Amino acid sequence: MKQGRFTIPADAAFAEESLKIAKKWGADAVRDCDGTALPDNPGRFGKVYNTYFVVRGDNDWARKHPEEAQRIFLLSERNLATGKTLDIDIMKGFLKDEFAPDPSYSELWQVFDRSSGEEVREWSYDGKGAVTVKNCKPFHEYTVTFLARITWHPVQVYNYITNNWTCEKQLTYDPAFPATKEYIKEYMENWCKSHPETDVVRFTTFLYQFTLIFNNEGKEKQVEWFGYAQTANPVLIKDFEKESGIKLTAEDFVDSGYYNNCFRNPTEKFRKYMDFVERFVSETVRGLVDICHKYGKEAMMFLGDDWIGSEPYGEHFKNMGLDAVVGSVGGGVTVRMLSEIPHVKYREGRFLPYFFPDTFFDGNEKGAVSELDRNWLTARRAIMRKPLDRMGFGGYLSLAAKFPSFIGRVEEIADEFRTIYETIDGKKPWCRLKVGLLNAWGKKRSWMSHMVAHELWYQQIYSYQGILEAISGLPADIEFLSFDDVKNGVPDDIDVLINAGDAYTSYSGGRAWLDADLAAQIRKFVYNGGGFIGVGEPTACEANGRFFQLADVLGVDEEIGYTLSIDKYNIVKRADELTGGVQAFDYGEDKKNIYALDGTKVLDITFSDRFRRNVNVGEVKMAINEYGKGKSFYITGLPYSFANSRLLYKAMCRVADKDLLVCYSDNVNTECNYYPASGKYAVVNNARTEQKTVFYDVHGKKTELTLKP
Amino acid sequence: MKQGRFTIPADAAFAEESLKIAKKWGADAVRDCDGTALPDNPGRFGKVYNTYFVVRGDNDWARKHPEEAQRIFLLSERNLATGKTLDIDIMKGFLKDEFAPDPSYSELWQVFDRSSGEEVREWSYDGKGAVTVKNCKPFHEYTVTFLARITWHPVQVYNYITNNWTCEKQLTYDPAFPATKEYIKEYMENWCKSHPETDVVRFTTFLYQFTLIFNNEGKEKQVEWFGYAQTANPVLIKDFEKESGIKLTAEDFVDSGYYNNCFRNPTEKFRKYMDFVERFVSETVRGLVDICHKYGKEAMMFLGDDWIGSEPYGEHFKNMGLDAVVGSVGGGVTVRMLSEIPHVKYREGRFLPYFFPDTFFDGNEKGAVSELDRNWLTARRAIMRKPLDRMGFGGYLSLAAKFPSFIGRVEEIADEFRTIYETIDGKKPWCRLKVGLLNAWGKKRSWMSHMVAHELWYQQIYSYQGILEAISGLPADIEFLSFDDVKNGVPDDIDVLINAGDAYTSYSGGRAWLDADLAAQIRKFVYNGGGFIGVGEPTACEANGRFFQLADVLGVDEEIGYTLSIDKYNIVKRADELTGGVQAFDYGEDKKNIYALDGTKVLDITFSDRFRRNVNVGEVKMAINEYGKGKSFYITGLPYSFANSRLLYKAMCRVADKDLLVCYSDNVNTECNYYPASGKYAVVNNARTEQKTVFYDVHGKKTELTLKP
Repeated sequence: MKQGRFTIPADAAFAEESLKIAKKWGADAVRDCDGTALPDNPGRFGKVYNTYFVVRGDNDWARKHPEEAQRIFLLSERNLATGKTLDIDIMKGFLKDEFAPDPSYSELWQVFDRSSGEEVREWSYDGKGAVTVKNCKPFHEYTVTFLARITWHPVQVYNYITNNWTCEKQLTYDPAFPATKEYIKEYMENWCKSHPETDVVRFTTFLYQFTLIFNNEGKEKQVEWFGYAQTANPVLIKDFEKESGIKLTAEDFVDSGYYNNCFRNPTEKFRKYMDFVERFVSETVRGLVDICHKYGKEAMMFLGDDWIGSEPYGEHFKNMGLDAVVGSVGGGVTVRMLSEIPHVKYREGRFLPYFFPDTFFDGNEKGAVSELDRNWLTARRAIMRKPLDRMGFGGYLSLAAKFPSFIGRVEEIADEFRTIYETIDGKKPWCRLKVGLLNAWGKKRSWMSHMVAHELWYQQIYSYQGILEAISGLPADIEFLSFDDVKNGVPDDIDVLINAGDAYTSYSGGRAWLDADLAAQIRKFVYNGGGFIGVGEPTACEANGRFFQLADVLGVDEEIGYTLSIDKYNIVKRADELTGGVQAFDYGEDKKNIYALDGTKVLDITFSDRFRRNVNVGEVKMAINEYGKGKSFYITGLPYSFANSRLLYKAMCRVADKDLLVCYSDNVNTECNYYPASGKYAVVNNARTEQKTVFYDVHGKKTELTLKP
Repeated sequence: MKQGRFTIPADAAFAEESLKIAKKWGADAVRDCDGTALPDNPGRFGKVYNTYFVVRGDNDWARKHPEEAQRIFLLSERNLATGKTLDIDIMKGFLKDEFAPDPSYSELWQVFDRSSGEEVREWSYDGKGAVTVKNCKPFHEYTVTFLARITWHPVQVYNYITNNWTCEKQLTYDPAFPATKEYIKEYMENWCKSHPETDVVRFTTFLYQFTLIFNNEGKEKQVEWFGYAQTANPVLIKDFEKESGIKLTAEDFVDSGYYNNCFRNPTEKFRKYMDFVERFVSETVRGLVDICHKYGKEAMMFLGDDWIGSEPYGEHFKNMGLDAVVGSVGGGVTVRMLSEIPHVKYREGRFLPYFFPDTFFDGNEKGAVSELDRNWLTARRAIMRKPLDRMGFGGYLSLAAKFPSFIGRVEEIADEFRTIYETIDGKKPWCRLKVGLLNAWGKKRSWMSHMVAHELWYQQIYSYQGILEAISGLPADIEFLSFDDVKNGVPDDIDVLINAGDAYTSYSGGRAWLDADLAAQIRKFVYNGGGFIGVGEPTACEANGRFFQLADVLGVDEEIGYTLSIDKYNIVKRADELTGGVQAFDYGEDKKNIYALDGTKVLDITFSDRFRRNVNVGEVKMAINEYGKGKSFYITGLPYSFANSRLLYKAMCRVADKDLLVCYSDNVNTECNYYPASGKYAVVNNARTEQKTVFYDVHGKKTELTLKP
């Protein structure tokens, strides 16, 4: 049994048992959680992590400074005017414990006619929650965007609901205001003094919570893990105006109710404000980190909760001077999201399941082990490429302890993790090709594209997330490129560009493709030998006679009705080694109405069985196209599976013109990594049964292997 | 056996047999077809119809006046510039026998950079089919829009291909040019003189062919039954400019390659030009009709071929002074499209199958009868509502004569048709409610919405065409309303408005919904008690925080990614009498990502079986919503079937607040019509087997009935 690189959650009420499990798992660190306290003398577990909150937890301070509470712009419901005057109950649908309208900044409030899109000036607020709009246009809809104080920290609302908490509700405060600005430094200093046993300050997290709004029934109303809604601080807005000359309005935050959801192309204004917030956050956090260091403690960031403004892939992250990050591991994507974060000494992954009653209820021992296995198997692929430095778990250890087979399985996994870590030893594994994922966000949203709420499954995203999940374990490096990044040329080291997403989202790009220079640069890249992969509705934006702006490169376009009059003859499925032997493909949510241009090689196509006369052109699902010296590959959707991961890898090699049979294991249930520095190969069996495979080494030499489950 | 109201096709080579069949079918008129000649002494068949062509058929004239050939603007392929200069083979992909580039009007040609959307001035034509573009931007795509002479009539190209014709290829000429303008009158006069036996001049058709472009392999390249591409006459363009001050360019016709496809919202310019062409056509045709009348002949228009500009539901149709129209019957929709045409004395339907070898080949006797039955059964529903005045068939009678059971079945159908006609006797059947179908075209495209090529099935349209097919036989009157028609208020007599189509098409409306006044009028109509039915992506146009602009009325909206962060809780399917008893519905092509707003009653919803954690909001397929005193009904698609026709009728009664059980037959395979003038009910069995049903009379009194197949 190996030791180390493992953090265990423990709490005071379960100290002795915790110690036994800690030994079993080889833990060298212990942590408390939101809602638990550490056992006495925690140093006997190893390094001591303590949860630390910056903008909540001191309700006395918050009560003393209600004017310095965190703020958010909220959008009321849409209200139909049937006459000239309209009364709007602005808080309707919101949780009154979470928010309180703040009329002290009423000059920032806005009323909109949402039918015409115009701002309306004739309105008044009664101070008790009602706005009256005058001279309404009948049968137009009106909304009020109002500033609200955040009177209950949203994550605590969540915990209250999930775990039936009854403790006092935590208020909030915001260091963008002058008194709190000083206060949080003092508090940090005092805290460090009073926590000599703490080795690592585990910040949960810094200043601004991601968007998390509850409804009047206490149910989640809106959640976005990337949302900047809660950065709507009047001081920041004013300072931003001083610096940039841009006067933000409530509408800039509320954005018709979309709250700048990351599926929307970010406006120039919004990007600049994000950058401004990032600078403010990193300066403020630096002050706190310096205090930690002064007291000999490490500063660790939890990538979650109030992480907004501390973008780990942003330009200002390095200025915070952090020692470590920790985050939740949902699969390969979140492993890489964590393990590639720059400018920290180590990165820790909190694995699933979280030790909460929703998994650890009586009779669910098998279910808990199965969730653990699934989490580990998906994460392991990514760890083979770029390992986390540490692993851990969270929640109530006493709950997990009730399931001995779970405790045993964690022990095995912890050892396997340490073995992989030591074998790789910080050396870069062999890489077959380099992929550029092209979207509106680029580097800042590295490993974060197509995500709504951290780790949650949404029907609209899994067919795209499969791409990153696949790549997280493939011998391919990836760079996240924004449209701006390639406007003057695709970087030389990119072999394959990927553009994936639904039409008009920030991920496929929407109106960004109306920039003819952008389209020309991509055409040039492919024409001169580059590879291009489109998934879903890549480059989609109706203009100039096309829906997919790069239909010529992709060899496919989408029929949106405007070209129904044009005959489509390229409707025959062709055999190809890419699809050879496979009968049915899993496209996830799929896309309809895709057709192939002449000359494109159709790899899969479906036909309606309603066909009556002579017009049935089918719907293309997968195609490959030659374009100059380059190639493109199109697929309607790519949910993660072993087979789709392999299909994507084969397609990438094909469009990048690279031999497939190099460092390759031909059974799709297995994968191969090669570590040149040590000369070692790792052929991994991802399945739970024995697998036979043909393995090709870096020179293409074949060997037959049999791999244990 | 009854006689009359029936036109038989006959040709000289099959005269005696034709006469026998004519008697069997009770024919009282005989016609020739494109490609056949009438038998001698055709008067023995009854009235004599003769095919007449206005702008083709006299190749001597056409050869004498090549400068007066019909014209079209063609769009070259898109050509990628990889350097500074680009040579474009403008005729690439076109059938060289059909078109010849016409550099005599080269000032009308245009070259576009399709990547930037800009017109390019630096180009030259070599006179031999190549345009050279200079100072290209690398990796932009360029097109040439060039005027071409139509050197082979497109319908004849079609007949050549379908029937392996070998006769001389028919050239074209255009009476917008001065010499042809006079010539067609002379020719008409002479023709009338030389055809004393002709009673009815069957115009096939007038001046301008619908868009029908063939490719270099002689296969159909582009077809649109509503296309005005071939009206690109330089004289008309100049006269239009004189009248309106609007200078049309080639791009106005070519429209990025869409050729103003009717799925696009028509531009103001294009509408005005259509009106101009309609006036020119109706004046010109009036001249010819007057000549026919002078010689005691009737003028009949075939609704097809060169029908462009003679819009039967347009404002200028009445000025042509026609006696009759005839058109092909594909089902209930085309019956009503013909039977409701105003300003003519009678309307004739040419039923299917056409007597062509594609149906009448050896061994397909059963197939031919089955096609006949299907055609008749779908048409009959509409005939019960508003009958055609005559029926007939087309093609080679000698082919049909080979199948005795086919001949026998036509005999039965002809009798049934006459019985229905005599029973209705021109009286209006009882109507339960009045529907307004709302789209960008309104009245001009009555019974023509969602259609591409006459009668042809397209995967993208059948889920909407089902609405009209259903209504064609339902006790509901229908008015086709344009967005302009309702901008100042929905007409008082409308009970239910329907908006149906894919997003951003002219049928759902796209940007038309950004007119806040339009949206407000519809809201007002429903709020005050009106009914609204949305199918597919009704009122869809992303703006102001919504995708469906009338999401509040419909109670549903479509998730396009921007509101993934908003929780959706209205996901429980509710029981309702509308859907009662039915397990599975047929939505045709369906729509994804539809969700219900709070308060909406979800009638059907599907869930992905991939659901992993706690976010699975389902996809709403059908819903009903209360809005003020009114109601709306939403469904993702409504292909025609007995069940869907009934569902639509029930939904219409529901949202219009009308009792369902009045003049009603509850078995979905049966339908009921009531003729108040005669006090007669017709309960029809649409199925091919015996049916039992409960019938409710106009007072709601119940009777049980058993109906024969």
